[in-house]
Amino acid sequence: MTDTSDTTDTPPGRVRWIPTGRSIIACKPIEPDANTVVFSTRNPATGTVLPSRFQAATRVQVSDAANEAWRAFDSARAIPTSDRAELLRAIAQGLADAEDDLIQICAQETGLTEDRLSSELGRTTSTLRLFADVIEDGSWQRPAIDTPDPSRKPSPRPGLRRMLLPLGPVAVFGASNFPLAYSTMGTDAASALAAGCPVIVKGHPLHPGTGEIAAQVVAEAVRASPFPNGWFSFLHAGGDRERDIGSELLEHPCVRAAGFTGSLGGGTALAEIARTRPDPIPFFAEMGSINPAFVLPGGLSKEPVGIAQHLARAIGQYAGQQCTCPGLVFVVKGSHAASFIERLALELRGMPPTPMLAARIRKNYLSRLESLLALPGVRTEVGDPKEIRGASARLSDDKPTHEKPVLLRTNADTFLSHDTLHEEVFGPASIVVECENPAELARCAGLIQGSLAASVFLASQDLSIAEELVAILSLRAGRIVFNGVTTGVEVGHATVHGGPFPACNRSDTTAVGPMALERWCRPVAFQNAPGNLLPPDLRDENPGGCLRLIDGEPTRDRVAASKGGHPDS
Amino acid sequence: MTDTSDTTDTPPGRVRWIPTGRSIIACKPIEPDANTVVFSTRNPATGTVLPSRFQAATRVQVSDAANEAWRAFDSARAIPTSDRAELLRAIAQGLADAEDDLIQICAQETGLTEDRLSSELGRTTSTLRLFADVIEDGSWQRPAIDTPDPSRKPSPRPGLRRMLLPLGPVAVFGASNFPLAYSTMGTDAASALAAGCPVIVKGHPLHPGTGEIAAQVVAEAVRASPFPNGWFSFLHAGGDRERDIGSELLEHPCVRAAGFTGSLGGGTALAEIARTRPDPIPFFAEMGSINPAFVLPGGLSKEPVGIAQHLARAIGQYAGQQCTCPGLVFVVKGSHAASFIERLALELRGMPPTPMLAARIRKNYLSRLESLLALPGVRTEVGDPKEIRGASARLSDDKPTHEKPVLLRTNADTFLSHDTLHEEVFGPASIVVECENPAELARCAGLIQGSLAASVFLASQDLSIAEELVAILSLRAGRIVFNGVTTGVEVGHATVHGGPFPACNRSDTTAVGPMALERWCRPVAFQNAPGNLLPPDLRDENPGGCLRLIDGEPTRDRVAASKGGHPDS
Repeated sequence: MTDTSDTTDTPPGRVRWIPTGRSIIACKPIEPDANTVVFSTRNPATGTVLPSRFQAATRVQVSDAANEAWRAFDSARAIPTSDRAELLRAIAQGLADAEDDLIQICAQETGLTEDRLSSELGRTTSTLRLFADVIEDGSWQRPAIDTPDPSRKPSPRPGLRRMLLPLGPVAVFGASNFPLAYSTMGTDAASALAAGCPVIVKGHPLHPGTGEIAAQVVAEAVRASPFPNGWFSFLHAGGDRERDIGSELLEHPCVRAAGFTGSLGGGTALAEIARTRPDPIPFFAEMGSINPAFVLPGGLSKEPVGIAQHLARAIGQYAGQQCTCPGLVFVVKGSHAASFIERLALELRGMPPTPMLAARIRKNYLSRLESLLALPGVRTEVGDPKEIRGASARLSDDKPTHEKPVLLRTNADTFLSHDTLHEEVFGPASIVVECENPAELARCAGLIQGSLAASVFLASQDLSIAEELVAILSLRAGRIVFNGVTTGVEVGHATVHGGPFPACNRSDTTAVGPMALERWCRPVAFQNAPGNLLPPDLRDENPGGCLRLIDGEPTRDRVAASKGGHPDS
Repeated sequence: MTDTSDTTDTPPGRVRWIPTGRSIIACKPIEPDANTVVFSTRNPATGTVLPSRFQAATRVQVSDAANEAWRAFDSARAIPTSDRAELLRAIAQGLADAEDDLIQICAQETGLTEDRLSSELGRTTSTLRLFADVIEDGSWQRPAIDTPDPSRKPSPRPGLRRMLLPLGPVAVFGASNFPLAYSTMGTDAASALAAGCPVIVKGHPLHPGTGEIAAQVVAEAVRASPFPNGWFSFLHAGGDRERDIGSELLEHPCVRAAGFTGSLGGGTALAEIARTRPDPIPFFAEMGSINPAFVLPGGLSKEPVGIAQHLARAIGQYAGQQCTCPGLVFVVKGSHAASFIERLALELRGMPPTPMLAARIRKNYLSRLESLLALPGVRTEVGDPKEIRGASARLSDDKPTHEKPVLLRTNADTFLSHDTLHEEVFGPASIVVECENPAELARCAGLIQGSLAASVFLASQDLSIAEELVAILSLRAGRIVFNGVTTGVEVGHATVHGGPFPACNRSDTTAVGPMALERWCRPVAFQNAPGNLLPPDLRDENPGGCLRLIDGEPTRDRVAASKGGHPDS
């Protein structure tokens, strides 16, 4: 809902976006419903309840959104890709125009800084624009044509044309820690729209106002586009209704795929619903990731201070609430390692307390820390064990959620013998693991859980151990960063943001970058199809000039007569 | 094991392959083990037990095969792709050279004709050769390079290089109905080897001799190659051990992915094991498929006899035991439909009884038929209901398994109201569904279960209903065939052999064609990697000249300096 009346706060001519507390179904705010669960949220930096009240979507509203999405999908087949690209760009522009309002409310709801949110919004809009560029060239759909050979013996070779086709309505479960880049119009929603699928967003209860404003912007862009209104819905989800809204979406026959970013427990439970429905649907979950850093001896001796500074920032900034936060730092014992750990500790001690996203998240974080501290052989290098012990039990919802970074320290033996040290700690903490030698470090690498990313800090003399590490990490991480930290995901064509379980439930995909579009599609082959029944990008004429595999050769040409002629039967 | 001594049966100079009954682990036949379960199999065409005795792999042997595969994978990283391609070609040649022995034993074990098996072997070897060609060009790994931009503000753009990398050892569960194209060195095993993964085959108990001979050929080719012997193992699986061997393989930590072709029940049970192990692994199952044919009014009036003949052959040949057998035929009522059904019935009645693969499969087939016949509104058009009722209970293992084709007939109302009519009947049977009008036919299409393939027989006047049908089938089938039958899978670059559940558990993949290789891989991104730590196909030099996406543009060039220079850090 837009409001241009409030001229005191708003410069003339600027639209002001404010949340209404109502879900948006088929691009329209729903009428208030007296029987709905109402919820609110807190400013984690102060502990105070924010003024807005949000109405959780009812079961009927969930079903309406899904039915409308299906009808929209069914009726929008003829809308050309160029309109889809324009819609993505209009959404990007709308979000950029709404930046001030979005960031203001988002900072209140999440405790994240305006700088961080501004850069996150930049990533969100540039992702939308990148996807618009990508789909304008149909090549991403992987079109392939095998031309027929009627004279082949013993049987003629049929003409086969294959392409990725969209699955249908996609449900998106937003993340608490990236309220813009992973929520209403984050990478899951953007990639689904780009792939040609309608989107239903389940709003996140920790930033409902942010989610709704972004949804208002998207709805406005969809209404101004050739797409039916059912193309987009946003459902407020909170209070007692939160979980049920998720299940209802995943069980609805019109929902054909879903994306999730969140905890291992949440992702696993939702995956089970998607898997056990009568017609199982693809479900893509990004969950917990440990993102180890391996600081090799050469790298350490070359630039100990710089590495310590980079790692400290990656561990502590945004209270460590990033899916790529480095949770383990491996070093080989020695004088360089000792001074590196000292410097890392110094940097972390110098960082200010930062609010966590919610008391609940802070509580989980402190419990995890406490259980790690109880292990023999684990000690705190930064942080006071006395403050950590029992802290989670003392928390109350109405207090600020600030935490200072914590650094734990252990040795390889302890790491190798306690599985709990291999699991994510979601918060501003990391564990330094000292290894006796490079072989022991490689042995530790072999026990790393599936991760989104891993770092290797090295110099030229580390080549041999680096080769071994890269071989190991290639089986355990989606991205291997050299002489840099894992935080700060670059959105490009080559991006991989995924990894083996438990980082993701589908290690063959990425949540970020253009390959993410393929998650919402399925390859379909057309055999001896009349030209007028083929999708445009598979027709002889190749109107979009997209790169197609013709008899195994990539080419942007139309199908030449010499290739076997027209496949019409 | 080869035998050149038997000069009576074997032309001079020709190697003769005979099964020994022993599993092959790391390319070597294992020593006999007195404590092993021994099993045999029957010739289904006669019901007699075949003379060979096979020793089911023990738990230790399963583990040995998996461990050897892992060690082989770990040690074979430096072997160039050209050697991988050569291995595939050597296997293809070896199988072609062993054709006489393979087909002789296979015909005895399966009751399939020599002609059919010869064509199946041709498909098997041409698949191996196609995959060899595909991997010689590294483009299939989808390499992508985003060049760095150190001058970008506010932060430099890192260099990102992405490629698909192999997962590790793959377990292959062969199919009863395609003893060559889907078993020891069928499409799953061939694609895994092509992708750079070692293979462990669980032999199928209905054709153990065929499986073992094929495995002997593969082992000989691997031994003559630069690959370690652990690259390939074949485990005899039968008797009480059959299921356990499957679970043990899927639970083994060294097995990193698996492929299965078989029943819905079997696939679902195995998928559960792969999913619930501590580190879940990808599991690709091809299961049951109904493969509907839609004969539209125009198509029907144009060529009723030809369509009836093609469909009859697709339904009845090889006792209907093909995953692409058309299980449903939809027509719109009218005089053309009546004479078409008559002709289809005539053709089916004229087909000879054909042996099914095993008494167990025949029993399931007859039970399914009986349950369908019990539905009100379903009647037999071809086949005697009295013979079908109770037949499954009267079967005994020592009798020939021959069955004649059966055609059931019903109307759209009955089809729409009975889910069991939407499910596969594995055997030489199909159901004709008469619809009142094209709209009703489209409504039926909307209830089709996920299928590998669907057929549409049409003429130009059917365009409008065909468009609607194609839209529906694009969501329900992996391949849509126009004016042709679904049987006879063409193996080309554009092949899709997959489909939504229950046809497959992963509708985004294909079991046949080069895209099948991607199932055994995962994308990995390297950020700011030194050139010498990158896989060759991602290095600046692009030694294989493969097509890479450089900053979004496909090119076969090396990375030019103008693109941002060398990414070494």
